[in-house]
Amino acid sequence: MEFPSKLIEDAVTEVSKLPGIGKKTALRLVLHLLKRDEEQTQTLAQSLTAMRTKVKYCQRCHNLSDDDLCTICANPRRDGSIICVVEDTRDVLAVENTAQYKGLYHVLGGIISPVEGIGPSDLHIESLIHRLANNIQADEPVKEIILALSPTMEGDTTAFYLQKKLRPFNLRISTIARGIPIGGDLEYADEVTLGRSILSRVVYE
Amino acid sequence: MEFPSKLIEDAVTEVSKLPGIGKKTALRLVLHLLKRDEEQTQTLAQSLTAMRTKVKYCQRCHNLSDDDLCTICANPRRDGSIICVVEDTRDVLAVENTAQYKGLYHVLGGIISPVEGIGPSDLHIESLIHRLANNIQADEPVKEIILALSPTMEGDTTAFYLQKKLRPFNLRISTIARGIPIGGDLEYADEVTLGRSILSRVVYE
Repeated sequence: MEFPSKLIEDAVTEVSKLPGIGKKTALRLVLHLLKRDEEQTQTLAQSLTAMRTKVKYCQRCHNLSDDDLCTICANPRRDGSIICVVEDTRDVLAVENTAQYKGLYHVLGGIISPVEGIGPSDLHIESLIHRLANNIQADEPVKEIILALSPTMEGDTTAFYLQKKLRPFNLRISTIARGIPIGGDLEYADEVTLGRSILSRVVYE
Repeated sequence: MEFPSKLIEDAVTEVSKLPGIGKKTALRLVLHLLKRDEEQTQTLAQSLTAMRTKVKYCQRCHNLSDDDLCTICANPRRDGSIICVVEDTRDVLAVENTAQYKGLYHVLGGIISPVEGIGPSDLHIESLIHRLANNIQADEPVKEIILALSPTMEGDTTAFYLQKKLRPFNLRISTIARGIPIGGDLEYADEVTLGRSILSRVVYE
């Protein structure tokens, strides 16, 4: 595509570097900004720069944060006796959206993946160990770790590694239930999921 | 969705104002930028601001441009005797991509649409008339106007209006061919398009 303006071309090139956005979509977005107030573009540019330069990571759970401690870790009403271990911030948001969990989090910042060259030392595993080692002196000792990782090969590997590492602390270690999604149709469920849901059946009490 | 950081929330809000981008996609884009070099975000923000504040419109054809005249109008190798009238810059790019047209353009900046309250006076029609009125003194007088507007109700209305307005100039006025797309299947063509393609059949010479 030959652009009539170098400025447009540069903007389109930069926007199309974002994942899932091709040249045509980028051009549509740029032309949209051109039609709107100059202020909208300024606010967009400023909020992106501010976010990228000023955002921090929580010193305790490595979640994204504006301060040294994230709003979840700093909230005294959260249950400090449970830690939910997740891959990244998006998973924290996903669990928070369920409104079913009131404990704390630990964000690994990735998942063990030999293919992508990500090993345990690249993740925030040491800091989780450290967090649990300091646990004995805490007011509210940790009693349970929930491993909320994706049910993929990498997720299972990471969960297996963490289980081994966490065993010495004598905590309850759990994982989120795998099974048929709510609203899902048995007929269309894959055999692995359906098989697992039969093995992990829940007894009516 | 409750964000752990106000900075992230602001960025997501701004990004999700773009057309076709919802909150989830915006969050994915923002987290992607966070994983990349700070420089990438800076370049993106700067290119958007530069584009929005510095881009101009060509004084002759109203195409987007870095200078007073766009690269197409300023190019002496373009054929000044044909003007292709289009709705917006994206159409210029689409026609340019075909590499089948070497004339000039005139960008209307929209299309007559009573529903959206856009009338002829909101478009760059007067400047097209002015361009043709000054035609007699030009080195390379305009001989043909191609109306390359979308085959919709609004496009046809605009084309009809322009034909009436341009009649006094005694030029050849044409429109792009409507018919079965290349690679299209007769069986699946709609009856209006197929009917039009029979009426506008091309005789083998």
